[in-house]
Amino acid sequence: MPDLEKILRPKSIALIGVSRKEGSLGKKFLDAILRMNYNGKIYPINPKAEQISGIPCFPDLETLPEKPDLAVVLLPSKFVLDAIKELGESEIKNVIVVSAGFKEIGGEGTEREKQLVALANRYGMNLLGPNCMGLFNTDPSVSFNGTFSPTLPNPGHVAYISQSGALGVAIMELAADTDLGFSVFVSTGNKAIISDHDVLEFLRHDLNTHVATLYLESIDDPRKFREVCSQLVRQKPILAVKAGRTDSGKRAASSHTGALANPEYIMKGFLKQSGVIRFDTLEEMFDAARALAAQPLPKGPNVAVVTNAGGPGILASDALEQHGLKLAQLEDSTVQKLKAILPEEAACSNPVDMIASADHDTYHDVMEFVLHDFNVDAVILIIVKPPVDTTPALIAENLEPAIRNCGKTILPVLMAQRDESAGIDVFKRLNLPVFSYPESAVKALSKMWQYHQTQQRFFKAVATAKPTQLHSEPLIQTDSTHSQVPVKDIMSLLDEYKIPVVEYALTPDINEMIEFMNQHSAPVVLKIANERIIHKTDEGLVQLNIGSAEELKAAFDKMKKRARKLLPDSEQPLFLIQKQLKTGLELALGGKRDPLFGSILMMGLGGIFIEVLKDVSFRIAPVNAYEAEEMLKELKSQALLNGFRNIPPLDRHKFAQLIQHFSLLISEHPEISEIDLNPIIWTADTMSALVVDARATFAERRD
Amino acid sequence: MPDLEKILRPKSIALIGVSRKEGSLGKKFLDAILRMNYNGKIYPINPKAEQISGIPCFPDLETLPEKPDLAVVLLPSKFVLDAIKELGESEIKNVIVVSAGFKEIGGEGTEREKQLVALANRYGMNLLGPNCMGLFNTDPSVSFNGTFSPTLPNPGHVAYISQSGALGVAIMELAADTDLGFSVFVSTGNKAIISDHDVLEFLRHDLNTHVATLYLESIDDPRKFREVCSQLVRQKPILAVKAGRTDSGKRAASSHTGALANPEYIMKGFLKQSGVIRFDTLEEMFDAARALAAQPLPKGPNVAVVTNAGGPGILASDALEQHGLKLAQLEDSTVQKLKAILPEEAACSNPVDMIASADHDTYHDVMEFVLHDFNVDAVILIIVKPPVDTTPALIAENLEPAIRNCGKTILPVLMAQRDESAGIDVFKRLNLPVFSYPESAVKALSKMWQYHQTQQRFFKAVATAKPTQLHSEPLIQTDSTHSQVPVKDIMSLLDEYKIPVVEYALTPDINEMIEFMNQHSAPVVLKIANERIIHKTDEGLVQLNIGSAEELKAAFDKMKKRARKLLPDSEQPLFLIQKQLKTGLELALGGKRDPLFGSILMMGLGGIFIEVLKDVSFRIAPVNAYEAEEMLKELKSQALLNGFRNIPPLDRHKFAQLIQHFSLLISEHPEISEIDLNPIIWTADTMSALVVDARATFAERRD
Repeated sequence: MPDLEKILRPKSIALIGVSRKEGSLGKKFLDAILRMNYNGKIYPINPKAEQISGIPCFPDLETLPEKPDLAVVLLPSKFVLDAIKELGESEIKNVIVVSAGFKEIGGEGTEREKQLVALANRYGMNLLGPNCMGLFNTDPSVSFNGTFSPTLPNPGHVAYISQSGALGVAIMELAADTDLGFSVFVSTGNKAIISDHDVLEFLRHDLNTHVATLYLESIDDPRKFREVCSQLVRQKPILAVKAGRTDSGKRAASSHTGALANPEYIMKGFLKQSGVIRFDTLEEMFDAARALAAQPLPKGPNVAVVTNAGGPGILASDALEQHGLKLAQLEDSTVQKLKAILPEEAACSNPVDMIASADHDTYHDVMEFVLHDFNVDAVILIIVKPPVDTTPALIAENLEPAIRNCGKTILPVLMAQRDESAGIDVFKRLNLPVFSYPESAVKALSKMWQYHQTQQRFFKAVATAKPTQLHSEPLIQTDSTHSQVPVKDIMSLLDEYKIPVVEYALTPDINEMIEFMNQHSAPVVLKIANERIIHKTDEGLVQLNIGSAEELKAAFDKMKKRARKLLPDSEQPLFLIQKQLKTGLELALGGKRDPLFGSILMMGLGGIFIEVLKDVSFRIAPVNAYEAEEMLKELKSQALLNGFRNIPPLDRHKFAQLIQHFSLLISEHPEISEIDLNPIIWTADTMSALVVDARATFAERRD
Repeated sequence: MPDLEKILRPKSIALIGVSRKEGSLGKKFLDAILRMNYNGKIYPINPKAEQISGIPCFPDLETLPEKPDLAVVLLPSKFVLDAIKELGESEIKNVIVVSAGFKEIGGEGTEREKQLVALANRYGMNLLGPNCMGLFNTDPSVSFNGTFSPTLPNPGHVAYISQSGALGVAIMELAADTDLGFSVFVSTGNKAIISDHDVLEFLRHDLNTHVATLYLESIDDPRKFREVCSQLVRQKPILAVKAGRTDSGKRAASSHTGALANPEYIMKGFLKQSGVIRFDTLEEMFDAARALAAQPLPKGPNVAVVTNAGGPGILASDALEQHGLKLAQLEDSTVQKLKAILPEEAACSNPVDMIASADHDTYHDVMEFVLHDFNVDAVILIIVKPPVDTTPALIAENLEPAIRNCGKTILPVLMAQRDESAGIDVFKRLNLPVFSYPESAVKALSKMWQYHQTQQRFFKAVATAKPTQLHSEPLIQTDSTHSQVPVKDIMSLLDEYKIPVVEYALTPDINEMIEFMNQHSAPVVLKIANERIIHKTDEGLVQLNIGSAEELKAAFDKMKKRARKLLPDSEQPLFLIQKQLKTGLELALGGKRDPLFGSILMMGLGGIFIEVLKDVSFRIAPVNAYEAEEMLKELKSQALLNGFRNIPPLDRHKFAQLIQHFSLLISEHPEISEIDLNPIIWTADTMSALVVDARATFAERRD
C-alpha cells in the first residue's frame, strides 16, 4: 500500500505549473501555502520567473538543490503526462495532481487517466488525484495548506477525507470560528492511485488525528477498505456520509464522477462490517466528530440531563429514548444531595431541573454530585440564558474543578446568543463541544455510544467464533443444458457445512418412500427433485400433508405421470420426500455474487415477509458470530423473532451459527451464482431451524 | 372564546408589582417594554414610588387616568389572588399573570390556581398564565415586549406559542442575527384560562403573522384545539413540536407541568387530523417556519437543484428522494439553453452542476432558464464559496431580476463563511431563507410541500364525503352479569351502519344451519354465539372448513355438548354459522373510548400484524374519506395492500368508506367502551372486505 508519509508530512515541495499571474491556480496554491507558514522548503518550478510571491523559482527539476519530498502538478491536463514522466525520471515518488480533465469528463479524459495510472505505476509513484483540491495538515510540525483555500483551516483533531473537493472547501468555510477543528484534509479526487483506504491507513499512525470522517461517492476496493477500517476502528472512530443512497442520488453521483454506483443494499451492511458509523447528513457527521474529538467515550448508555429550564429537559429526554440511550436512574444519595441545595420547585430526579434561579455555583455543585453518581455515564448539560446574575461564560469557568478528569462524557447545550457572555472560548478550552439544541447533542452522544460498542466488537473480534474454513470441493456442472444445481449436490453441500435439513430421502422408488414414511411419522411432503423443473408448485409437483401410505402412493403416481411429460424419456424422475413440519417461524437465507463485493449474504423472514415486504438484511460473506446476530437485529418484523402464539422465541445464537455456516458455504463456492434456502422453519417441536427447500444456480462458466 | 385583541395589541398597560429595585422582576419587565419603544401608555402601580425608569407611577388602580387595556401581575404568588380581585372590581378584563407558584408546584399551588380560575371566571377575565413568561408583539403599530428579555426580538412573520417560557427565551436568543423573525410570541404557562387554541384563533386574523409555531407539552381541550386549527390551517401553516413523545419524555413532562400526559398513539393521528405539521426537533420546525414565512408554497413536488459543485448536488438529490420530493425532469429546451451557456464539463440535466467556474452571471442565467421550466416547482440553489471572481453577495444581488415574481419556491444553501462577502442582508432583502446544508434546505422544502397538500385537503374538506349521521338508538345492556354485547346486537348495529358482514345465520337450530349451508355453498364455519364465552377458539367452540351436512351435524353436537357445560341450564346455546372465505388480506378495525379525546378509531392489518407487529393507525372518530385513506397509507406493511400472490390490491376507496362508517358507529355509540372487528377479510372472490368476527364490550354504567 502507498506510504503517505511524504505526501501528508512533506519537508519539501516542488510546484509544477505555477506563475506570477494573480488569480492563477498556481499562484493561489502557493499563496495558500505561504499563508499557513509552511515549515518546509518550497520550490516553484518556472523557467520564466525569478521568484513568485517572494519565493525563488527554479527553471526545472534538475536545478533543484535537493530531491523534494512532494511535487504538486497544477498544469492544464494536456501537459500533465509529460510532467509525470519528468518527475518519474527524477525519481520523485510522491505527487499530487490537482489538474482536472481526466476520467470525470469521459472520452479522451478516461484515456488520459489510463495513461496517467500506467506512468505512475511504472515509476512506483504515490499519486493523489487527479482532479483533486489537494490536502492540508495542521500538525504544527508540518503546517501545510495545499488547498488553494484562502480560509485558514481551524486546527483540531478531526481528519476529513472527501471525494468531493468542493465539500472539503465548503466544510472548512462553515467550520471557521466553530469548535470543529481539523488535523488533516485530503481531497481524493478521481482516486487514480491513492484511495480512501490509503489515507485511512496513514491516519492510524497520525497522533494528531483522533477522529476520521469521510465523504464518499464510491468505494472502489471494498476488500482493502474493510481491511484498513477494521484495524483503524479499534483506535479511532470512522464516520462517513456515503452519497448516492437513493436512486436520484446515484444518478447524480454517476454523472458527477463516472464511478460505478455501489448498490445501497450492499453498502449498508458493508459499512457496518467495516466498523464505519454512517450518517445521512454532513451536519450530523461533524456534530458527532466534534463530540468524539473533544470528549471521552461514554462507558454506558445512562445519561443525566442537567438543565435550568424544564422544556429543553423534556426534549432531551424524548431524544434520548428515540436514539437508543436512557435517562439514568440517579442514586438515592445523589437525589438527597440535590434536594439539599436546590429550591423546592426544582426537580431532583433525572432530568435535574434546577429552575431558572440556578447560577454558576448551582451548576458547579449539581454537576459535581451528578458526575459522581455511579449510575451516570454521560451528562447533557443545558444552559438557557439565565435570568439571574450569571452568564454562560461564568458557568463554564466555574465548572472546571467539577469536570476535570471526571472521565465521563459531557455535552453542553447552550441556548443563548453567541455574544461575549456566552464564553465560547471557555467551553473550547475545557474541551466542551457546544450544541445549540438538546436534540443535536443527544444525537451526537448516541453516535459516541455506538462507536464505543463498535470498538468493543472489533476488540473482541479475535475471540468471536468464526467457522473453520472448509475449502470443500467445488461443485461441477455436469449437464450444460440447464444451470440449476442438482438437489443431491445441494443437499450434500448443506451437509458438508453442517446446515441442518428437515429429515428427507431422495429416491425414484415408491418403496423407499413408504419405508421413509414408516421410519418417520406422517405427515410427509412429496416433491419432484429435478433441476429442469423449477416451478414445482405451479406444475403440481409438490404435495403437502400426506398422511398414509395410500395417499403417498396416489400422489407418487400422479406426480410421476406429470413429470414424465416434462422430462426426456431417458430420465427417471427423482423425488424428495420430507417430514412435514408443524407451523413455525419461516426464515430464509440467500447468496449471490457481486462483481465488486464478492459473495453477498441475505437473511430474512420467509413467506410474504421476504416476498412482499422485503424484510431482509445483507452482508458480505463470510460473517462472524457478531455480524450474524446483528443481521437478525436489523429485521423490521423483529417482534416475530421473540416468539408468538405457539412458536417459542427463535434461538438467535443457534440461528446465527447457521447463518455463519451458510455464509462460509457461499464464500467458498464461487461456482454457485445464486442459492436460496427458503423456507427454513423454526418450530417448537424441533427447537431447531431446519431447511425445508433449497435451490441453487451455477455461475456461467468462463472456460 | 376569549378575545385576545387587548392582550396582544394593548394600547395601555398597568403593571402590578413593579419596584425601583434593579434586577427585580418588575423592573426588568418594565425596562424590556421600554427598550422596544412600546407605542401605548404604561402605568406602573406603586404607592411608594414617584416614577420608575422615568415612567410616572400611580398608587393604585383607582387613580389611573383611564381603564388600561391590559394588566400584568408580577407579584409573589401569595398576593396574586387579592390583586386579581381588585382588577376584577375595576373591570379590567385582560390580565397576564407572570407569577409562578401555582399548579406547577402542586399542593397549595394547585389550590391557589383553582381559586384563580374561579375569580377569573367570576369577573369574565381573559387571563394568560399563571407561571408564564409573558408575550411580545413586533407589529410596528404595537411594538410591545412583555417578556423580561433584554434581547430584542427579531421582527418577522413567524408566531410562536410556547408552553415553556424558557424555550421562548432560548429561541429568541438563538434567532438573534438570523433570518428567523417573529411577529408574536406567547408564553402560555399553566394555561389556566387562555390556552393554545385561543392564541391560534387570534393569529387567524393577525395580518403580521404568516406562520404559526407551537411548543406543546399537553393538549387540554382537544375538541377546541382541532376546531380552531382546522380553520387556521386553510390560511396559515401550523407547525408544532409536541414534547413527551416517548415514555422518558412523558415522565419528564409530567414532573414539569403536572399536566396529564397525552398518549402518543392518539396524539400522532390527532395532530394530523387538526392539520398540524409535526416536528421532532425545534431546529427543524424553525427551519421550515423560516422557509414558509419567506417563500411561496411549491405547487408540486418537482425540484431542480442548481449548484456550482457536484457533491452537494448529490446530497440534495439523496435528501429529495428520502423526503418524498422528486428531481424535476427538465424540459429539453431548458437543457439546450443550459448547454449553450455552460462549459462542457458541466451537467445540464438535473442536478444542474454549473461547476466551479460559475460566477454571478452564470447563476443568473441558469436560474432564469430553470425557473421558466414548466416542470420545475421549486429550486434548491447551492452556492459553495466560489473560487472565481465573485461572492455569494454578488450572486444574490444578480439573482434579483431572475427570481422576482417568479412564483416558485427558492431555498438557497450557502456553504460559505458568514462574512461580509456572504451577503446575508441581500438574501434577507430578497426573502431568501439561507440554509447551511443541502439536507436541511430539502427537509424544509418537503415540509412546505406537505403544508401545501394539507391546506388543499382542508379546502376540499367541505366536498369530502362524510357519512350522514345516523343517531341510531343506543344499545341497552339487559344482562348486567357480563359486559359483552350480544352477537345479535353487534350484527344489527353493523347492519345499521352498512358495514358488510360475511353471509351468516344466527340460530340454535341445526335444521336452520343445514338450510343455510344448502343455500350458500360449503365450506362453512360454525361458532358459539354467546356473550358469556369470550375465548371461543380456546374452548373448542369454533370449527372451520365444514364441508358437508354430516360434518356440520357432528360439529354441532360436539359444540353443543361443550357449551352446555359452560352455560346456565336455562340458556339455549345460540350458534353463528358463516360462509368460509378463501384466503385473503386480513384487516381489522377497533374502537375505544378515551376520557379526553372521545372515540378513538384503530385500523390495521389483522392476524400477526395487529397481534405481534402492532402495525396499526389511530384517529379520533369520526373520520372523513381523506383521513380514512391516510390511515391506510400509514401502515408499515404497505406492500400487502397492493396485492400479492392471488390476492388483488385492496380497493382502498371502498375500504375507506367502511372505515368511515365504522368511525361513525363508534362515535355515535358511547355506550360501547370497546369494539373489535377482527378479522375483516378482503378476497378476490368477493372483491369486498367482509367482517368475519366481531366483539364489543359495554361501558360501565354510571347510573
